[in-house]
Amino acid sequence: MTDTRVQDLIGLLDEKVVVTDPDILAGYRQDWARDPDAGTPLAVVRARSTDDVAAVMRWATTHSVPVVPRGAGSGLSGGATAVDGGIVLSTENMRAITVDPVTRTAVVQPGLLNAEVKAAAAEHGLWYPPDPSSFEMCSIGGNAATNAGGLCCVKYGVTTDYILGLEVVLADGVVVRLGGARLKDSAGLSLTKLFVGSEGVLGVITEVTLRLIPAQPPASTVVATFAELSDATDAILAITRSLRPAMLEFMDRTSVNAVEDAMNMGLDRDAAAMLVARSDSPGAHRTEETGIMATACTEAGAAEVFVTDDPDEGEAFAAARRFAIPAVERTGSLLLEDVGVPLPALADLVQGIEKIADARQVTVAVIAHAGDGNTHPLIVFDPEDRDMEERAHQAFGEIMTLAISLGGTITGEHGVGRLKKAWLPDQVGDDVMELTRRIKNALDPAGILNPGAVL
Amino acid sequence: MTDTRVQDLIGLLDEKVVVTDPDILAGYRQDWARDPDAGTPLAVVRARSTDDVAAVMRWATTHSVPVVPRGAGSGLSGGATAVDGGIVLSTENMRAITVDPVTRTAVVQPGLLNAEVKAAAAEHGLWYPPDPSSFEMCSIGGNAATNAGGLCCVKYGVTTDYILGLEVVLADGVVVRLGGARLKDSAGLSLTKLFVGSEGVLGVITEVTLRLIPAQPPASTVVATFAELSDATDAILAITRSLRPAMLEFMDRTSVNAVEDAMNMGLDRDAAAMLVARSDSPGAHRTEETGIMATACTEAGAAEVFVTDDPDEGEAFAAARRFAIPAVERTGSLLLEDVGVPLPALADLVQGIEKIADARQVTVAVIAHAGDGNTHPLIVFDPEDRDMEERAHQAFGEIMTLAISLGGTITGEHGVGRLKKAWLPDQVGDDVMELTRRIKNALDPAGILNPGAVL
Ligand SMILES: Cc1cc2nc3c(=O)[nH]c(=O)nc-3n(C[C@H](O)[C@H](O)[C@H](O)COP(=O)(O)OP(=O)(O)OC[C@H]3O[C@@H](n4cnc5c(N)ncnc54)[C@H](O)[C@@H]3O)c2cc1C
Ligand SMILES: Cc1cc2nc3c(=O)[nH]c(=O)nc-3n(C[C@H](O)[C@H](O)[C@H](O)COP(=O)(O)OP(=O)(O)OC[C@H]3O[C@@H](n4cnc5c(N)ncnc54)[C@H](O)[C@@H]3O)c2cc1C
Repeated sequence: MTDTRVQDLIGLLDEKVVVTDPDILAGYRQDWARDPDAGTPLAVVRARSTDDVAAVMRWATTHSVPVVPRGAGSGLSGGATAVDGGIVLSTENMRAITVDPVTRTAVVQPGLLNAEVKAAAAEHGLWYPPDPSSFEMCSIGGNAATNAGGLCCVKYGVTTDYILGLEVVLADGVVVRLGGARLKDSAGLSLTKLFVGSEGVLGVITEVTLRLIPAQPPASTVVATFAELSDATDAILAITRSLRPAMLEFMDRTSVNAVEDAMNMGLDRDAAAMLVARSDSPGAHRTEETGIMATACTEAGAAEVFVTDDPDEGEAFAAARRFAIPAVERTGSLLLEDVGVPLPALADLVQGIEKIADARQVTVAVIAHAGDGNTHPLIVFDPEDRDMEERAHQAFGEIMTLAISLGGTITGEHGVGRLKKAWLPDQVGDDVMELTRRIKNALDPAGILNPGAVL
Repeated sequence: MTDTRVQDLIGLLDEKVVVTDPDILAGYRQDWARDPDAGTPLAVVRARSTDDVAAVMRWATTHSVPVVPRGAGSGLSGGATAVDGGIVLSTENMRAITVDPVTRTAVVQPGLLNAEVKAAAAEHGLWYPPDPSSFEMCSIGGNAATNAGGLCCVKYGVTTDYILGLEVVLADGVVVRLGGARLKDSAGLSLTKLFVGSEGVLGVITEVTLRLIPAQPPASTVVATFAELSDATDAILAITRSLRPAMLEFMDRTSVNAVEDAMNMGLDRDAAAMLVARSDSPGAHRTEETGIMATACTEAGAAEVFVTDDPDEGEAFAAARRFAIPAVERTGSLLLEDVGVPLPALADLVQGIEKIADARQVTVAVIAHAGDGNTHPLIVFDPEDRDMEERAHQAFGEIMTLAISLGGTITGEHGVGRLKKAWLPDQVGDDVMELTRRIKNALDPAGILNPGAVL
């Protein structure tokens, strides 16, 4: 028996757009964080257009129904977790893109995947840099809503650096256009930037105008393994002090082994840490940069250092790093961290995580976008083992507290979502929380947009 | 006789900090836009610290006194114009800076000049890119509050791209710290970015954490002159289609002549337009880029093209371009535009401006950060000639209306301030104005922060 409000909504839209089949709903309850406390929505709306989204929001305002915006559901902090009695508003079918090679911009609907945006840009010899490891399964709308990062961000910046404009549907269904295909625009408040990273709590992003840049030059890759963790963190600092790598990634022994189990590519299972670094400087300068990075690794005490100018060979190591989360997930259930610190505190963070893992007797695999101090400790637990699960949750909180004590952040790129919100006040303080609430209330007074996320 | 509220304020701070001498006040009534409607403030507070700023805001809240934040007063849109019965809150004496070469960040008080920030970074082999032409006379706080642009922004981005964190004093005197020395931070709403470009209407910026990058490699410069304006705009498009110049500046005949009058450096007075372009790519790639740019100019029909690898020689042309506003100002009073359009519309904009100048019989000198479509038409008038002044004001509005009709912005980098606010609703629409008001009211319910600016 369908709720009469949902009948209304079906009347406004279409039966194919408003889905109430429980089997289908089940697939929209969680994102990749697999929040066990996920609710069951009244319906999933697979919007076809901005008009559909506006109709949903007007309807939701009238009936005070919570709405959880959803891109591709690859989020790692429970930002797209469904709430009981609410609507999941999916943008997966809004997939148009136009690339303008003259202004080097793209206008994209939110449901297109990051990889598809990159491919459309590449057809014009252009590049959309932000590259979350999930690039083949996350949407550009989700990227905008979380201010997604990735591997090349250490040199090329994060999603917000590439967003020139947005179309947003507000809580009451009003559609606003912010910014546009202009490289510079100081007219009025920086509202575009406010919506980037707002995790669905301020509005629904229905179109994104992206800045593109010329295609990335060919890159060379340095791979180094270390017998000691601290040698690897020394090498990271030595590299970032002397140049801006186009990628600087870190994997610890546990994640190297998980990837090797899955991919069988001959990684050194005994190494305490592996670094994968890239230079994409033009011409001879690239050789210079890889030389500096290789030397930095050797001088820091690397066991082995290997440089390749072959893009495919280099990409294999980047792909190995990207596969780390799914690979570690094969060894148990995961609690996914995303803590970041100022670079000089990286060694303290990594060592502190080891101590927490020992004390709580859980495995914590550490991978990191090391060049920008953003780490992903992956806490592994056996979901059948209640006690272990409990200890994993304790470690989860302790790692965030550690990062805060080192002047860091509880989330460098995944967002706060539902799973990290208890720690947000510890990081930003009560006054910033109050400021956040004031803005939330100004934009969504009824609190229907993604309730329970962030705040 | 001093207002008793001001007596209170002097009691809270210090006689040297709270200035009421009318001769000194007079110097704080206007910024570089020289708004004739500027008011006379009760007092100028030259804050020494965040505590001073917080004390002023608490006092202002209690007594409902308007506060106009002021950096160095080089603003071009009347954002720092004093209001009758208000306070001008100057940050000029808050000038501390700490540079951390390891994290490549700087923590700076707002009163330090842009040029001083650059110099402090350079001592560590680092570079703070944003370079408004006014870099020797504008403050970093003013840059943050206007999201200042400049000449290298076409490749290196604008101020917001370099701001990692802020300390802000809110309307009620509460001090918040937002972001910090971390390259990536997705914890909570993007509040840091909201305050960038907020022109003093949301809070007072009391500290800025900046991202720095390695020193800019040596640059080579291409200078080209054109007999036809449209050839110059063709060359601009040809250049930006093939690469990202580190600078791409435009001057029309009027501004070339004004600069030549002032600097006597042998510029071609007959040219309809001059372009100054730069490449700072490493190594041989630089020669490749200057070659491409020179060829683009030649093929577009340039009268003369000249390439130099000598940094001093190149800098002389950049300095000439930077001096254009003061040089044109020697020929009369100015109304300063800052309109931007998507690049393909640049030719239409420049031609449209010529038509408006003809119709209104005023001189309009055009300079532009051409690579990002951001132009500065300078409307020259004789302040003694009432009718001409009236026609200049008509042209001022018509140029903004033209930019809006071409999909552009009324301000690419100077901000809306007081002089452009009548056109803001035409550009962004009523719904965005309403959204802007909601955020303003949430943060400054009594409306004491820079009243009359932006909104
Ligand atoms: C294996 C793996 C690796 C990953 N690696 C990275 C990485 O390197 N860097 C990184 O940043 N992230 C990474 N992620 C996390 C995730 O992919 C990103 O957070 C991504 O941006 C989420 O996009 P999505 O489309 O899946 O969004 P969803 O998960 O559907 O939603 C994410 C959040 O955004 C909101 N949202 C989604 N769409 C909209 C919209 N149109 N309007 C308003 N709000 C919206 C949701 O409400 C939710 O709060 C990884 C995930 C996985 C599974
Ligand atoms: C010759 C000349 C050339 C110029 N060229 C450029 C250029 O190339 N690019 C460019 O972007 N600009 C340019 N400008 C404009 C101007 O220099 C910039 O807008 C600059 O950022 C203003 O800085 P300021 O310290 O002088 O700020 P002010 O003029 O004092 O103030 C500007 C605005 O910011 C607010 N404000 C200042 N400080 C604070 C603070 N601490 N907290 C909150 N609000 C604050 C003020 O209320 C006001 O609204 C030029 C100006 C001149 C005179």
